[in-house]
Amino acid sequence: MKKITYVTRRAQFSAAHRLHNPEFSDEENRRIYDKCNNPSGHGHNYDVEVTVVGETDSDTGMVIDLKILKRLLNDYVIEKLDHKHLNHDVDFMSGIIPTAENIAIKIWEQLKPHITSGTLHCVKLYESQNNYVEYRGE
Amino acid sequence: MKKITYVTRRAQFSAAHRLHNPEFSDEENRRIYDKCNNPSGHGHNYDVEVTVVGETDSDTGMVIDLKILKRLLNDYVIEKLDHKHLNHDVDFMSGIIPTAENIAIKIWEQLKPHITSGTLHCVKLYESQNNYVEYRGE
Amino acid sequence: MKKITYVTRRAQFSAAHRLHNPEFSDEENRRIYDKCNNPSGHGHNYDVEVTVVGETDSDTGMVIDLKILKRLLNDYVIEKLDHKHLNHDVDFMSGIIPTAENIAIKIWEQLKPHITSGTLHCVKLYESQNNYVEYRGE
Amino acid sequence: MKKITYVTRRAQFSAAHRLHNPEFSDEENRRIYDKCNNPSGHGHNYDVEVTVVGETDSDTGMVIDLKILKRLLNDYVIEKLDHKHLNHDVDFMSGIIPTAENIAIKIWEQLKPHITSGTLHCVKLYESQNNYVEYRGE
Amino acid sequence: MKKITYVTRRAQFSAAHRLHNPEFSDEENRRIYDKCNNPSGHGHNYDVEVTVVGETDSDTGMVIDLKILKRLLNDYVIEKLDHKHLNHDVDFMSGIIPTAENIAIKIWEQLKPHITSGTLHCVKLYESQNNYVEYRGE
Amino acid sequence: MKKITYVTRRAQFSAAHRLHNPEFSDEENRRIYDKCNNPSGHGHNYDVEVTVVGETDSDTGMVIDLKILKRLLNDYVIEKLDHKHLNHDVDFMSGIIPTAENIAIKIWEQLKPHITSGTLHCVKLYESQNNYVEYRGE
Repeated sequence: MKKITYVTRRAQFSAAHRLHNPEFSDEENRRIYDKCNNPSGHGHNYDVEVTVVGETDSDTGMVIDLKILKRLLNDYVIEKLDHKHLNHDVDFMSGIIPTAENIAIKIWEQLKPHITSGTLHCVKLYESQNNYVEYRGE
Repeated sequence: MKKITYVTRRAQFSAAHRLHNPEFSDEENRRIYDKCNNPSGHGHNYDVEVTVVGETDSDTGMVIDLKILKRLLNDYVIEKLDHKHLNHDVDFMSGIIPTAENIAIKIWEQLKPHITSGTLHCVKLYESQNNYVEYRGE
Repeated sequence: MKKITYVTRRAQFSAAHRLHNPEFSDEENRRIYDKCNNPSGHGHNYDVEVTVVGETDSDTGMVIDLKILKRLLNDYVIEKLDHKHLNHDVDFMSGIIPTAENIAIKIWEQLKPHITSGTLHCVKLYESQNNYVEYRGE
Repeated sequence: MKKITYVTRRAQFSAAHRLHNPEFSDEENRRIYDKCNNPSGHGHNYDVEVTVVGETDSDTGMVIDLKILKRLLNDYVIEKLDHKHLNHDVDFMSGIIPTAENIAIKIWEQLKPHITSGTLHCVKLYESQNNYVEYRGE
Repeated sequence: MKKITYVTRRAQFSAAHRLHNPEFSDEENRRIYDKCNNPSGHGHNYDVEVTVVGETDSDTGMVIDLKILKRLLNDYVIEKLDHKHLNHDVDFMSGIIPTAENIAIKIWEQLKPHITSGTLHCVKLYESQNNYVEYRGE
Repeated sequence: MKKITYVTRRAQFSAAHRLHNPEFSDEENRRIYDKCNNPSGHGHNYDVEVTVVGETDSDTGMVIDLKILKRLLNDYVIEKLDHKHLNHDVDFMSGIIPTAENIAIKIWEQLKPHITSGTLHCVKLYESQNNYVEYRGE
């Protein structure tokens, strides 16, 4: 009988960002985003966890080859975000306010087309040890 | 298209407690609660994680303002539990056996009326690095 | 009104393993399992989390006595896996390729018959800080 | 040639305590110890690390048998402090204000006579993730 | 007899920075600082640990009042660095290349004049989970 | 004025090992090494921290280029130990009982000749979350 398992790979990137909506007034931006609206930006060590769900292959004992998941996460996410400024340096974040919510959604969109074994289930993004978000494609 | 995200804020409090049901005999209390029935009590550093789920606002890029979630968690939970004895010092724990299960349920009830952006989804309470519970309002 | 809570106990074991399917050629084994196919094996500190779900008992304030869950986890899982080689020394892993997915499924099967208070909900197995799997009996 | 190594064993206990000096007035106690002076006490999960230094034995490759260090730490420290109130339940803490500094010194004094292989070098005590103290027998 | 203890307080700040020496050519800056030279900067969650050493006061059982150490660390370090760009927004970092080494030295210099109970012993700065530096006033 | 700082880089490897001295009888090996003498071996995720001390270069603001320290640690330590059996697969561990003490000493000897900026100060090796050793070249 086939068994469903959830397989998660974790990685880390360090990036700068600034929360600022150009359609808000400066005063609204400061009120809504507070310290996160600092004009020169600030930064985080982000931890990202990607979960794939599927049947465990009876020959290999795996849902997805973790080497491949590690490589996809590295090539489509870490390489593009690590040691970057999320407002200026990342093609797929262009025009997006880099809240943790939006970064998680964009990481999902980056990875989704490449997960061909199992199904992408969740992207979890830690902005700090006290803040994290999850996006499950809903 | 609107996207659903789950946003979590974490905080910590240090408290004493004793597991003891006055309707049980002393012997039953010792058998059921064992070391946790020690008459003078013992204590923990508790970590609490509160998760709110909802649509990401397209203007702010946020489900709930994390500053507000941090303040609610601080005012209605941490300020009331930190450096307290859960059996003696906390109004909303009065008459409740302070198991991790019951503390999580009471934290949910404390926060629920104040979450007006998004929906309270989960309260997760770590009693130690090896024990934790979750309550999801079920 | 009864409340449903999820209660988790965590424990650790250190074990050696080798990923190798005798029905594959040596070349296939190396291609699929890569470094994990090293003939002498390698090893990990595994963290295992077992979650039980159920109604909180109104007398005890507990779903399951954590002392009992700790003992079951110790007797049926940790004692059998700790400081062992998963390919050679563990009866319930015999003939099973010890991927994280398969170990989690087997831990579930070991514990399931013994959880008589609440219902076994999830087995989560960390192979390293960057890799973990979950099995939920699906 | 003999090599010197430092070997550390870590363990955890959960305890209640209250910071209060009976020779101070109530007002002084509140001013000095603040939230830690709460009359019913509060509590922590304490992590304790014990370090032994010495020459690595050329036959065994060990400074001290970690099984023995684990047992000493368990018998003389953890068993006496875990799930206890440090002001009321612990013989060797009697009459001592249970600051982290004083607990670390007392743990050193408990262990020192029993370390017969290598030399006790340091006791490190974490009161929370943000506070810790070290005592080195100076 | 007086006992010497080492007391540590930990805190966290999130900041952006760029490693760049205006006296180097652009090519030298890229060769030496690599990804850390990214023009728009990047960022980290920094953990800082401040250690004070001294005799344990026999009346209070403390080397330094941890509330005071927490306040000093907050007022002279965290408030000035948190959610800032270290190259642009911090008076005491002006003209300093914000390597972890230099940030730790500057944090020491900020705190040193204010530690009037015990002696400042060490500033430890984690730039990420894999990189940290210590400065001990040498 | 030159400032001395201590710079640490951390990495992880997963390996199998068996504690066994061929000069001891089987009974002595079991008595001394207990579970660690299991004939098929067991394994760990090891964390290794390498600390280099030196003057902070006034031009670069660095003691040692962390990219270089990362590469040295990877090439001379991680590549040789990761996903290996320490008793069988590692040239520089040949004939050595792979206690944590001996592994730390051997890692020091591997790295020492290659640290040409600053001075190697400490190798710290975590065998599990509860056991670690340090070697400082003494």
